Amino acid sequence: MSSLEWSASDTARLEAIRDDLAQVSTATAFHQLYERGWRNTYMQGLRPLQELGLGKRQVGRARTVRYLMRRGPDIPPPDAATREAARQRRRVSPEIVLIESLEPDDIFCVDALGVTTAGVIGDILTARIQARGALAAVIHGVVRDTPFVRSLGLPVYCAGAHPSASGRDLVPVDRDTPVNMAGAQVLPGDILLADDEGVIAMPLDLAEYVAAHGPAKEHLELWIRARIEAGGSVHDYYPPTPEKVEEYRRETGRTLHP
Amino acid sequence: MSSLEWSASDTARLEAIRDDLAQVSTATAFHQLYERGWRNTYMQGLRPLQELGLGKRQVGRARTVRYLMRRGPDIPPPDAATREAARQRRRVSPEIVLIESLEPDDIFCVDALGVTTAGVIGDILTARIQARGALAAVIHGVVRDTPFVRSLGLPVYCAGAHPSASGRDLVPVDRDTPVNMAGAQVLPGDILLADDEGVIAMPLDLAEYVAAHGPAKEHLELWIRARIEAGGSVHDYYPPTPEKVEEYRRETGRTLHP
Amino acid sequence: MSSLEWSASDTARLEAIRDDLAQVSTATAFHQLYERGWRNTYMQGLRPLQELGLGKRQVGRARTVRYLMRRGPDIPPPDAATREAARQRRRVSPEIVLIESLEPDDIFCVDALGVTTAGVIGDILTARIQARGALAAVIHGVVRDTPFVRSLGLPVYCAGAHPSASGRDLVPVDRDTPVNMAGAQVLPGDILLADDEGVIAMPLDLAEYVAAHGPAKEHLELWIRARIEAGGSVHDYYPPTPEKVEEYRRETGRTLHP
Amino acid sequence: MSSLEWSASDTARLEAIRDDLAQVSTATAFHQLYERGWRNTYMQGLRPLQELGLGKRQVGRARTVRYLMRRGPDIPPPDAATREAARQRRRVSPEIVLIESLEPDDIFCVDALGVTTAGVIGDILTARIQARGALAAVIHGVVRDTPFVRSLGLPVYCAGAHPSASGRDLVPVDRDTPVNMAGAQVLPGDILLADDEGVIAMPLDLAEYVAAHGPAKEHLELWIRARIEAGGSVHDYYPPTPEKVEEYRRETGRTLHP
Amino acid sequence: MSSLEWSASDTARLEAIRDDLAQVSTATAFHQLYERGWRNTYMQGLRPLQELGLGKRQVGRARTVRYLMRRGPDIPPPDAATREAARQRRRVSPEIVLIESLEPDDIFCVDALGVTTAGVIGDILTARIQARGALAAVIHGVVRDTPFVRSLGLPVYCAGAHPSASGRDLVPVDRDTPVNMAGAQVLPGDILLADDEGVIAMPLDLAEYVAAHGPAKEHLELWIRARIEAGGSVHDYYPPTPEKVEEYRRETGRTLHP
Amino acid sequence: MSSLEWSASDTARLEAIRDDLAQVSTATAFHQLYERGWRNTYMQGLRPLQELGLGKRQVGRARTVRYLMRRGPDIPPPDAATREAARQRRRVSPEIVLIESLEPDDIFCVDALGVTTAGVIGDILTARIQARGALAAVIHGVVRDTPFVRSLGLPVYCAGAHPSASGRDLVPVDRDTPVNMAGAQVLPGDILLADDEGVIAMPLDLAEYVAAHGPAKEHLELWIRARIEAGGSVHDYYPPTPEKVEEYRRETGRTLHP
Repeated sequence: MSSLEWSASDTARLEAIRDDLAQVSTATAFHQLYERGWRNTYMQGLRPLQELGLGKRQVGRARTVRYLMRRGPDIPPPDAATREAARQRRRVSPEIVLIESLEPDDIFCVDALGVTTAGVIGDILTARIQARGALAAVIHGVVRDTPFVRSLGLPVYCAGAHPSASGRDLVPVDRDTPVNMAGAQVLPGDILLADDEGVIAMPLDLAEYVAAHGPAKEHLELWIRARIEAGGSVHDYYPPTPEKVEEYRRETGRTLHP
Repeated sequence: MSSLEWSASDTARLEAIRDDLAQVSTATAFHQLYERGWRNTYMQGLRPLQELGLGKRQVGRARTVRYLMRRGPDIPPPDAATREAARQRRRVSPEIVLIESLEPDDIFCVDALGVTTAGVIGDILTARIQARGALAAVIHGVVRDTPFVRSLGLPVYCAGAHPSASGRDLVPVDRDTPVNMAGAQVLPGDILLADDEGVIAMPLDLAEYVAAHGPAKEHLELWIRARIEAGGSVHDYYPPTPEKVEEYRRETGRTLHP
Repeated sequence: MSSLEWSASDTARLEAIRDDLAQVSTATAFHQLYERGWRNTYMQGLRPLQELGLGKRQVGRARTVRYLMRRGPDIPPPDAATREAARQRRRVSPEIVLIESLEPDDIFCVDALGVTTAGVIGDILTARIQARGALAAVIHGVVRDTPFVRSLGLPVYCAGAHPSASGRDLVPVDRDTPVNMAGAQVLPGDILLADDEGVIAMPLDLAEYVAAHGPAKEHLELWIRARIEAGGSVHDYYPPTPEKVEEYRRETGRTLHP
Repeated sequence: MSSLEWSASDTARLEAIRDDLAQVSTATAFHQLYERGWRNTYMQGLRPLQELGLGKRQVGRARTVRYLMRRGPDIPPPDAATREAARQRRRVSPEIVLIESLEPDDIFCVDALGVTTAGVIGDILTARIQARGALAAVIHGVVRDTPFVRSLGLPVYCAGAHPSASGRDLVPVDRDTPVNMAGAQVLPGDILLADDEGVIAMPLDLAEYVAAHGPAKEHLELWIRARIEAGGSVHDYYPPTPEKVEEYRRETGRTLHP
Repeated sequence: MSSLEWSASDTARLEAIRDDLAQVSTATAFHQLYERGWRNTYMQGLRPLQELGLGKRQVGRARTVRYLMRRGPDIPPPDAATREAARQRRRVSPEIVLIESLEPDDIFCVDALGVTTAGVIGDILTARIQARGALAAVIHGVVRDTPFVRSLGLPVYCAGAHPSASGRDLVPVDRDTPVNMAGAQVLPGDILLADDEGVIAMPLDLAEYVAAHGPAKEHLELWIRARIEAGGSVHDYYPPTPEKVEEYRRETGRTLHP
Repeated sequence: MSSLEWSASDTARLEAIRDDLAQVSTATAFHQLYERGWRNTYMQGLRPLQELGLGKRQVGRARTVRYLMRRGPDIPPPDAATREAARQRRRVSPEIVLIESLEPDDIFCVDALGVTTAGVIGDILTARIQARGALAAVIHGVVRDTPFVRSLGLPVYCAGAHPSASGRDLVPVDRDTPVNMAGAQVLPGDILLADDEGVIAMPLDLAEYVAAHGPAKEHLELWIRARIEAGGSVHDYYPPTPEKVEEYRRETGRTLHP
């Protein structure tokens, strides 16, 4: 069961905006989406295991996996035959199929119900996600083996750490379906934007909107901040009065986005 | 996207066990499932808006709807054309399609992420669920119009009340798919057992197991409780010593389930 | 420090709408406010200590008190002089001044930060609130002496019970100022509407809007529910198709509110 | 490992104060303890499964059991020999030993860490607790079989319901030791006072203090409430001015407790 | 509505103690306040976005802003006239007025109800707070633009990050009024002491007390710690026996604070 | 009341496995325990104040202290005699006796009920714990003086910081007894394994099991990760197919642990 719809032209559209979108902070992008009525695009409380650095961002396509609470027994395979059967089932298990189908610039996205008592991925799966070319892993839940995971260099966003494997409490149920990521609705094929403040999700057309208008907003905010740091007051610069808008135009040749 | 698999023979199997299963408390049924390695069959914190009464139970088939956080704007239709378009979209909206496809003895089951800030159903949808012949509504989330909903007589289990309609924070995304019901994994077509302690979910074959062995367990526990109330000690009766097992056999003609 | 602004004409306006507003459920009122962009009018989790009954509602004017965490010592007066000084301070303490200034049809409204470890009012203050003619007490926090408080008959909404007096953890800081009531912003002089689903707050002009349009909405919903109970489908009646709108008009002589 | 110290003279002391203490509400008792510097005597959030009724109270001696999280496997006995071994171990298990040693007027008191995912007692153990003459059961955790437990008539205070037996998540570790009851420290042999507001714990000597001074406080408060209900103001009566103290003395022949 | 009372002599008093107070850790200061009966002076869970470093502290005057939940619509200005009106309203909005009235050595203090779904300040307001000479910003809520905010160098204490601007969920209601800062009561003009453990608040006279006695306490604790690190036992040194008090006096010429 | 049972041979057994156990990550150790049916060995949410570094681990013996909520007054000694009496009581207070009885390679383990409003240890007690030769301190609760504590170099795991001393809300009740450490059951004499993911607890015999089998598991996982990083797929390597098991054997001379 998969609902990922993505065409070659979508790839082209994403590539066309990647650099512009990466100039936009999640704060600015969130606000531009919010102004258009989009309230719930941010994944609350999913923090980077390791910070990217100021101004560094990831832009990628969401590939999703959904877990539910495990209900039946979780029995370690007692013999070789059972082990082999488990290995065969794992070949078609949603999270493995998804990982093995990751394409460069995908972002691996897991709704694990926010459960904090079982790690969804550890160092080996993270290494494979990275080797497939994915840009990041985002887990609505926790991660195991965090010291090693951090050492791999792949950006990982999650709600904390637990040494258990996922099977203690969770089972994967489907992939490339709509999921809840810590309060954000995420559809397969959504565009994700991640920086040290966290991760936001939006459909491709809104990502194009943000890529088109966000950099100008960032440019303006930078100019405002410089003025404020130089002693300008909020009354004059934030938002800018018509005089200051004119000053901005004069100095930078830019006008305000409408 | 629906994954409900259910045949006429499943209906026959359910009817065959309905009365036996209804003799089993959720506590006993939970325990029998737990002894077979099933940990997460109970929906934690979903309480009846109105109690059924001691020994009263509902047994039905799970029909599921899944909500996610709404992200885009929720704009009331400004004119007749827009209203009509909204009405048409609603015809194919998962929760409406599901309600209009409910069959007698179904239990309406909504995963609303446990969100407490928007009521998933109110009096009118509840009335329709009831009119379709459903046995109960179970909401992993909250309900609006609770004073009226309670007056309708349909058993409703939920996590509380909020006067808002669902659109404030939620949107339906699919139906008859696996869902998380307050910590229990529920698949479409699962058998639900509900009493005043709450609701548990299990697949049909395990429901048959519980229906086959649960009533004997209830009978034994009743006998034990009578002995305890008459002054018997836990050491002798709970669990019963071999002597007391023999006493039980002598008095009731029953042996212990293995 | 008080910001209650209320004129005789406001009293007249409130009296003019009281009966109409009392015909509107908090669910319907919430939704009408929400459709006009008002999201946070409901006090989440403040439940009635004792239910009013189906269709019973309270409509009153908000009179507010604000508590903060007590920081200094809470020493019982060791002698008569200290006791007298404490009694004099209490005469001007915000919560006492507010209670002694309550007018008939006021609703006593306390922001106690949602603290659950100290009861804000007990049986005696509740009795005085009732004797002053207030319609209800709403506590964003908990209440002590709940068995007795319940026996008084005044509707009390709160987040639970604690046997402690407020001084264990709280001190009153001001009255008739804007407060946070469990997620709802409440200004002194707001109109409160309470039923068994809880309490919502709105300014007088919006209360007039709800009083003007809410009863028609309730009437329509009642008619829809009757149709649904008689076997009508959601597709036809909720929202009603143009045909059903016409049927409603024919039967009741009413048209839909715009 | 038990630290219950209790002598025949303690029994006599408890009997001597039982009736007086039962005249004192938990709210008044809490406050009298608080005034002497005792902050944490109330078990927060432990509510009666069934209310006692206005003015009804239980006074008893705390007998405690302590649970921790189960860590090892919880395997149902596969054969008769294992079952017998399990039954023998259960004979010396702390919670069973404690139950079988309960004496009339004891209150069964379990620290189950507030865990809500496994019921500590069900109908049979509750029946035995009742048959031993205990006055109530108080569970810092949840209870299973709640519909049946409620039907037994023994007052049970707890944090909710779960159909699981305790073994799913908990194991008993000792009895008659100090425990944490929902924020109250409880020592074996403490005196518990319970009404519909909840349960408070205190050592015997403080129970004597409350029994000595509480009834007078309740009498005064009743008189004050009557005055308030008759229209008296908080300024005059709560606390009473010297004039009102005199009025109280004149009417009732009583003076204020110091 | 402002209740800041502050005179030139208060400024002098603050300057007189600033250096001494900065020698006292929040842990020692908290304890000295606690010993005088002050329980709630610490802002729980408000952590520095960036650490100050061992022994580094900020001492300043609290300037407060209070937010409540936004209830009405938050509509982006659709045209120039509306934008200008919004800009004019913003000139008198409490948080802006407060920021523009900050004086050197003030600490900007916002009660945003602990809401984690909307950032109260971002990089530009933080830059202005810093440019006004304020020493720190403390937010009972969250901050947006955290990567940039951290890069500015102003110490910021908060409960986390969210990319949204405050308007999504919050509105400012007043300034220089008493506020709840994560469990601490803070009055305008209180003295705040902040280090890497967090922030505590106290009135000026108690700040003088702590400045007078805290440094001696820190000196003693340092001496004790050195003794402990050299192998001394807790029995001898913590608290010090009379012999060790004498040893301290002999070595350092200091006596214990009473 | 102490239940620590520990013999010289236990010391020898611990020393024999220390180095091997330190090669095993908490993630691997957790999983090996889990496969044997041990679910609750991890202390959830207790994080290192300062990280140990990748691959660094601590292995020690658990020495436990248990706190409950303080209920009686916490009065600073008003005069020298009272101070001396307090000092004498402190000599036999469980947490002090435990600290003064710590032996090299012990790990100081405090169950403070997870309370976040009072720090259990500060810099001086931490210094003493370190001077006694303990390897780490683990607090199910919070720590005060965290900036100084961190500077000492002893690994400390806890749930956060609070400047208060423990007496504000807590009292020690016993030592070397079973405790709840953030969801893990810990018995005195258990073996603790700590790294930057957190702390797990197990009895000595299971520690021997993990020490015997864990290093091989780590070796295999390292080999798998290298293969994955080199482009191997999950299907082939995780878990390894029989071919890959053979490849592992050929390259490393090792076989899989059964």
